[in-house]
Formats: sequence, C-alpha cells, structure tokens
Amino acid sequence: MGLSISIKKNKSPKTKPDQNKLAFGKYFTDHMFIMDYAVGKGWYDPRIIPYGPLTLDPSTMVFHYGQITFEGLKAYLTADKRILLFRPDQNMERMNLSNDRLCIPRLDTAFGVEAIKALVSEDRDWIPSVEGTSLYIRPFVIPTDPYLGVRPSETYKFIIILCPVGAYYPEGINPVKIYVESEYVRAVKGGVGFAKTPGNYAASLKAQVEANQKGFTQVLWLDGVDKKFVEEVGTMNVFFKIKGEVVTPIMEGSILPGITRDSTIRLLKSWGVPVQERRISVEELYEAQQGGYLEEAFGTGTAAVISPIGELNWNGQEMIINNREIGPVSADLYKTITGIQKGLIKEDWGWVVEVK
Amino acid sequence: MGLSISIKKNKSPKTKPDQNKLAFGKYFTDHMFIMDYAVGKGWYDPRIIPYGPLTLDPSTMVFHYGQITFEGLKAYLTADKRILLFRPDQNMERMNLSNDRLCIPRLDTAFGVEAIKALVSEDRDWIPSVEGTSLYIRPFVIPTDPYLGVRPSETYKFIIILCPVGAYYPEGINPVKIYVESEYVRAVKGGVGFAKTPGNYAASLKAQVEANQKGFTQVLWLDGVDKKFVEEVGTMNVFFKIKGEVVTPIMEGSILPGITRDSTIRLLKSWGVPVQERRISVEELYEAQQGGYLEEAFGTGTAAVISPIGELNWNGQEMIINNREIGPVSADLYKTITGIQKGLIKEDWGWVVEVK
Repeated sequence: MGLSISIKKNKSPKTKPDQNKLAFGKYFTDHMFIMDYAVGKGWYDPRIIPYGPLTLDPSTMVFHYGQITFEGLKAYLTADKRILLFRPDQNMERMNLSNDRLCIPRLDTAFGVEAIKALVSEDRDWIPSVEGTSLYIRPFVIPTDPYLGVRPSETYKFIIILCPVGAYYPEGINPVKIYVESEYVRAVKGGVGFAKTPGNYAASLKAQVEANQKGFTQVLWLDGVDKKFVEEVGTMNVFFKIKGEVVTPIMEGSILPGITRDSTIRLLKSWGVPVQERRISVEELYEAQQGGYLEEAFGTGTAAVISPIGELNWNGQEMIINNREIGPVSADLYKTITGIQKGLIKEDWGWVVEVK
Repeated sequence: MGLSISIKKNKSPKTKPDQNKLAFGKYFTDHMFIMDYAVGKGWYDPRIIPYGPLTLDPSTMVFHYGQITFEGLKAYLTADKRILLFRPDQNMERMNLSNDRLCIPRLDTAFGVEAIKALVSEDRDWIPSVEGTSLYIRPFVIPTDPYLGVRPSETYKFIIILCPVGAYYPEGINPVKIYVESEYVRAVKGGVGFAKTPGNYAASLKAQVEANQKGFTQVLWLDGVDKKFVEEVGTMNVFFKIKGEVVTPIMEGSILPGITRDSTIRLLKSWGVPVQERRISVEELYEAQQGGYLEEAFGTGTAAVISPIGELNWNGQEMIINNREIGPVSADLYKTITGIQKGLIKEDWGWVVEVK
C-alpha cells in the first residue's frame, strides 16, 4: 500500500506475567497497531502506539450493528530464539473474505502481514518460551461512525493486539466429550457462518453454556436446514476417520474456512492418507461408531491446534470413539503442525514466516 | 430493584440541532444513563451522567464476540407539551428475551422503564415538536470483560442514549419497492433471529446494499431452511392483506417479535379485521398478486411505524401492489398508531406512558 508504519514507544512497559500461569486471553502486551479508514480516503495512518484504551462515542456503530471482523493467529519462539508465524497471509485473506461479507473495506493482505510482523517485533520480549506457550495475535476491524441506523459504516479502525497465552490444555492433549446440538443453530447457508464475525460467536454461547452444564466441553453443530449434517465443533473445524479415510464437512457457506483445517487436509494428502471434504450426517457417524469403524474424531483450530474427541453424545446416545484415547492420525497431526510452528519440522509450502 | 438513580448534570449543554434537519441517528442529547453489572454483585450504580465517550480496553469482549443486545423506542411530545412513551415495558421485556438468548443477565423491566423515563425527563428540552419528529431512545447492553475467549462476559454495562429524530419519510408515507432476497439469509430457527442483537443486522447489510444498488429500498427476507416462506422486510415485520384477511408470518424463532407488529395485530382484531399469524410462501403472494387479491402489503417497525409496500420483485417478477398506492388498512393503522403515540387518540390498553 506504500504506507509506512509510525512507531510511538511505550515508555511505561508493564511487568510481564508468569509464563507458567498465562491461561488464555488475559494479558496484553505494551503496544498495539491501529490504522484508520474513511470513505474517499481509504486506509490511512498505520501506527504502533502504546497499548491503551479506545475512546468511543456511545453511539459508535461498533456497539450497535455488529459490523466487525476478526482473526486469530500465533507467534512462536523457536529453541534458537527465532520468531515464527504460521500462515499469516491466510489470516489476512480470510479477513478480507469476512470483510466482503460484512461490507467492510478490504485490507491489503501483504500490508496486514507487515503490520503483524512489525507489532510482534516491537513486543518480541513478550513471546513466552515455556513449552506450549505462544503469543496470540488478534487483528480486528471495527466500524467507528457515531451513527444509529442500519447501513455500512463510513469509517473503521483496523487494530491488532497481542496476548501471551499458555498451553491450551494445561494437562496435555486429552480427548474431550462433545454434545451433538440438535436445538440451537450456529449458522446457515446464505448467512455469515463462513465469516469470522462476532455474531457467530454470540449465537453459539447459549448452546455452549448448556453443554458445559451437562458436562460436555463443546458442542458439535449440525446444519441449520436439515439438522442432520455435522458442521463444526465449538469454535473448531471437525474431522472424522472412518474405515481408514479421513472426512471433514465440505464448506457450503456455513462453516469457517479454518487455516488449521486447510493445513490438516494438505498434510494428510502429502502423507497419502485418503481425505475427503463432503457432507457427513450424524446418522452416518452413529452407524460407523456402532459398526466399530469410527476410528478417530478431532477438532482443528488455532487455539488448540488438534483437539481429539473421545465421546459424542447424540440425543442421549453415548458414542465412545477410539476408547477415549488419542488416535494415531490426531497424534501425528498435532506433533507435525506444532513442530512446524515451532520450527522443529521443515516443510516446503512456505507456511512458516519469520519475524526478523 | 430498590436502586436509586444518581444524576450528574451536564454543565456544558450542546446547541440543539435544527428540528427541520434532524434526519435519523445523528445527534445525541446532553445526558446518558449507565448501570454496571458484575457476577456476584448484580446490576449496580445506576446513574445519569453527561453524554460522553466510553473508554474501553481494546480486548474488551464487546469488540470481539458480539454478546450485545439493544432496543429502540421513541418519546413523543404532545400538542399540550406532555411527553409520551409507547409501550416501553414491551421493549424491556423483549430486551430480556434477547438477553436470555445471548447469556446476558436479565434486567428488572420496571426499573428499566424508570431509567428511560428519568433520562428522557432530564433531556426533555431535546424532544422535538415539529410534525413527524420524536426523541429516539436506544437502550443497549455491552459485555465489558477485558478478555479474549468465547464465553459469556462476567461484567456488563446497560446504557441508554437519546437522539432527536426527524420524520422517517421526509416526503410523507410513500409505498416502497422491495426486493425478495433469495440468496442471503438473515436468520434461521435455532439461531438468534428473534433477538435484538447486532449479529442479525450485520448479516443483513450485504443484501441491503445490493438491493439498494438495484433500486430497491429494502429486502424481503425468506426463511433460511426452505427459502420459501417470507419472514421480515428489511428491519421491519411484514403484513399482507389477501382477500380481505390480513396475514403476517408466524414467529417460529427467526423473526423479531416487533412491538408495532403486536400493536398492529391487536388494533386489527379490535376493528374486526380478520388477522392471522401463519406461514406465508412467496408463491402464495405471487398467486394472490396475479389473481388480483393481494390487496395491501406493509412493514411495521418503530422507526417508520407503517411502511406501505408498492412493489415486490421476486426473481425478476415485478409484483405491483394496490397500484403503488397506500391502502386503507395501512393508512388507518398509520393514523391510529401515530395518533395514539402523539396522544391524539385514546386507547384502553395502557400503551401510552407519560413521562412526568
């Protein structure tokens, strides 16, 4: 975009949190990136400034009409202290896919990656080094017109904040119990399910809370039309291994195009494991489980990378998968993807981008 | 709730805008109402303070996960300078319906109405008196935890802001052209379509923008399952008069329970006009229009009250309704509801609440 990023250093850096007690989403670094947009002017004034509050009129559209998109990715510290990002261009491309659906102006994807790199570099001392930790990166766009009325905003802010995070599973990668959700719907074809926008997460909360109360970690979403085909698990994409073949729901507009999902498909193909994107009914899963050939199930996402599923509960039917143990495909994927992210395993796709 | 509202007066009141150039959603009054919530503490510290910006950490959940609800209603100035609200209890009850769906703690509805009255009373000089104008009231709840992660927030703010608004139709109540939307979907049963939450409005933007570009004022939404049954028109509920009977889509979870919708149904019943809530397919409308018995169509909502529909465009089929003129039922409803709101027409339902 030909824009250069100005930097204003934080002169009062915070004390960094204990790396062994990071959890997720609680601590934020010393700087943030902001860039503004106005109709007729485009994106302007990219800047790294001290992390601090946003001051917004209560009529600002961000509080009223949900025209927001966001992304999530991580920076990893390697054993030799290099900083790696995993497929950040994919996050910026997906953000534009979301922006198109939400009538938000596009960002230059290469410049977005530059902004991420510049901010991570500025706060490089915040990247934790303890096993399983990383620096979570949250780019987001908010509408900033002080206006009440349903129309696209004419001004926006693109913001990036950083957050050192702990291992997603403090006790290691353990298979989780999942509730097949037959009442609440996350998204439907023609809606915004494929976009990373707050409304999808808001719509998911009630089912998640109720599933937690019943003792489940997450829900498995079914399609909104037939309530028959599986879509996602919680905030992750979902995969099943049936008779040696790995299957995942095909993207028809209601499923988030996960970057870990895409990486998983590419890795499996490179390993010669048969993998197919297609419609998968919950009945098919039930029959496979009853027949003894539902061999593995797992979720994929940025936060947990690979999250094995040990049990599905469908209308009271308890479907135990792989004796509640991690299957070999799930384990290989977890080890490989986290290994690539940490710079321990080489790959030829150009997935890993170093922050200098 | 036993809470009393503290008041801090604005010592620098703004210049009020020209009442003849108000438009919608652009000017805000001198005060706002805020009340906080924390888990374990409940709602606390209700206060009226000078209108001013909110200062929020960029990690605040309101920017990321869409757990927001809002309402919209109006205060009207009568000829003898009394201030009237129209069914404000219904707005607070609907806000709780929305809050339940979004995992937001409930508000005391009576206290909510008291808060609205107290704020409107404080800014009573802002209520415009020109024909067709009113004071728009926007209550909303935002989550305020500075946290990244998909779970309900543990803290919230309930805020009310006020906005003098002009006539919704500067040139009077004219029938509009509506595009029947067959691609994009607003909501689906099991989702959040019945709740007043930003995600529904964000999801609607793209269809609205595309319809505007084609020369239409709004879209008519079809159901997300069969794309066959009509649901809402833009941000309004929708009614049709077919062979002397008025019909409106039945609420099955994907339609906003409009207060003007409810008032319309009650008025029609009291007038002896047959009215039915049921599924209405777009095919049925087409056949009725072709057969010459689609006699009227109109939207209902707080902003426009009654908005007659002069034309529906369904896959290129142009369906002219009532010769693009306002029908008698639409006209009677508009005159009666606005008359009640302005205190010109008496009613026995207790719809009108005076602000002393």
